[in-house]
Amino acid sequence: MTFEVTILGSSSATPIFNRNPTSQLLNCNDKFYLIDCAEGTQQQLIKFGLKASKIDYIFISHLHGDHYFGLIGLLSSLHLNGRIKPLHIFAPKAIQEILELQFKHSDTNLKYELIYFAIDPTKSEVIFENNDVSVQTIILNHRIPCTGFKFTEKKRLRKLLIEKLEQDEIPIELYPLLKRGVDLDLPNGNVIKNIDYTTDSATPKSYAYCSDTLYDSKYFESIRGCDTLYHEATFLHEMIERAKETHHTTALQAAEVAQTVGAKKLLIGHFSSRYKTLVELLDEARTVFPKTELAIEGLTFEI
Amino acid sequence: MTFEVTILGSSSATPIFNRNPTSQLLNCNDKFYLIDCAEGTQQQLIKFGLKASKIDYIFISHLHGDHYFGLIGLLSSLHLNGRIKPLHIFAPKAIQEILELQFKHSDTNLKYELIYFAIDPTKSEVIFENNDVSVQTIILNHRIPCTGFKFTEKKRLRKLLIEKLEQDEIPIELYPLLKRGVDLDLPNGNVIKNIDYTTDSATPKSYAYCSDTLYDSKYFESIRGCDTLYHEATFLHEMIERAKETHHTTALQAAEVAQTVGAKKLLIGHFSSRYKTLVELLDEARTVFPKTELAIEGLTFEI
Repeated sequence: MTFEVTILGSSSATPIFNRNPTSQLLNCNDKFYLIDCAEGTQQQLIKFGLKASKIDYIFISHLHGDHYFGLIGLLSSLHLNGRIKPLHIFAPKAIQEILELQFKHSDTNLKYELIYFAIDPTKSEVIFENNDVSVQTIILNHRIPCTGFKFTEKKRLRKLLIEKLEQDEIPIELYPLLKRGVDLDLPNGNVIKNIDYTTDSATPKSYAYCSDTLYDSKYFESIRGCDTLYHEATFLHEMIERAKETHHTTALQAAEVAQTVGAKKLLIGHFSSRYKTLVELLDEARTVFPKTELAIEGLTFEI
Repeated sequence: MTFEVTILGSSSATPIFNRNPTSQLLNCNDKFYLIDCAEGTQQQLIKFGLKASKIDYIFISHLHGDHYFGLIGLLSSLHLNGRIKPLHIFAPKAIQEILELQFKHSDTNLKYELIYFAIDPTKSEVIFENNDVSVQTIILNHRIPCTGFKFTEKKRLRKLLIEKLEQDEIPIELYPLLKRGVDLDLPNGNVIKNIDYTTDSATPKSYAYCSDTLYDSKYFESIRGCDTLYHEATFLHEMIERAKETHHTTALQAAEVAQTVGAKKLLIGHFSSRYKTLVELLDEARTVFPKTELAIEGLTFEI
């Protein structure tokens, strides 16, 4: 199953040349989940050849503009381009008022339904679930209420050993039951042991997205053991005071989070515009957590 | 005096690859006026090496998103980048409510003052004036209230003939009076005739910006005789029915407007995303008005 994330923006606060503020597109089993939506997100999707029309779920971490100012434009373009299927928005409650005010003044009556889910920023809970994935909120510590999101794959069905099944002439009608892990007692007295004809599917993976936050152990539990951790790393550690003041994290701290929670891989982003190149941020994080990568525009990471 | 406009966006409704929705930056005597502000305008300014911090006046024609969704992001970035000087916004009344709602939810207290002027879309009037330029609204005919803007240079002071002034040893203290066109009777009985020492300054130029509108003779009077006319040309004339339905103009009609009002130059823009190349739109306009140019991203036109 595909489970990967494409980075649409790596800049904090303001865009700078070649870096856009935060947005990511998660592909889970060819269903598309947009995480945050800064100004210019629809242009970034076009630039990287990704189809906005395929997105059915949008998750907004908080209402600082560098995480949502592109939402109204994206939704408007979907409307103008003829979307009719519903679209789900998981975001702070006020997003609905903000969007509807702008639709009202542009006299826009959306041709598709927007289904809002108002995130409660005070508790970590599962806010979405389908056959592929569940999404749990992560309570972050920022200047305004802010939640991250942990996407966890659902356990997949067992894999059939087709060659063996064919060799023993097991009827094809039984395959779905075997995929579900069932042992079968046949009317003729034969027993089909599941273990002989299937293997376990891959272990479900998880992706934790921590957008804007002060380094704070309170949220560690909800991201413990995640496979890929995206964590903001706005500053180098020499700017730790500025990081605290603005409720952000340094590259070193992001790496410490990854190490502490036992993540397998770390992606860092949300870089201050003061950094014209990013190699120092990467190097700093890698001193603590070697499996760190820069989450920069256009890159796709397998979870 | 510099009087030129740089195009930041040429697309209608939705962005497409390499074309952004509408925004233009007018430079009049090294003061900067932003006209409309679609999503991605701040990124376009960065791309073309133009400083957002120099903009003191913003004019928004109407509240369709492709003309203003970039405003909140631009204003936020100016705040984050330390702006303290006031900024003037001339726009439909509701813009204030839309912006303030978003500032409230992001807990943003701007470090600079926003001075709002609510445009009355029912009358053509002068809404701004300084030593360089006056701005008059143009009542357009669109699906929601929409005004264009005519920027007219102020008459400049007369030009001094320095060589002649020095030759006749005219005291330098008198220069400012001569620039204002005054004849001088000196105490010693000498008369300094202005016409001998100065020449007229260049005739003031005007730039008319017609953003989104149905072809409608009602607004012709307010743009008559303008030097450069920017007029939307969303469709080829073969799409005239679609143009009427959506309250837009065809390239042929834009050229007819330019010809009818006696403009010296026509810029066309606001192109539908159905047109992957624009040469047909240009060719069509030039059949009626040869001095037509495509107003595309990054081009600067002297008025």
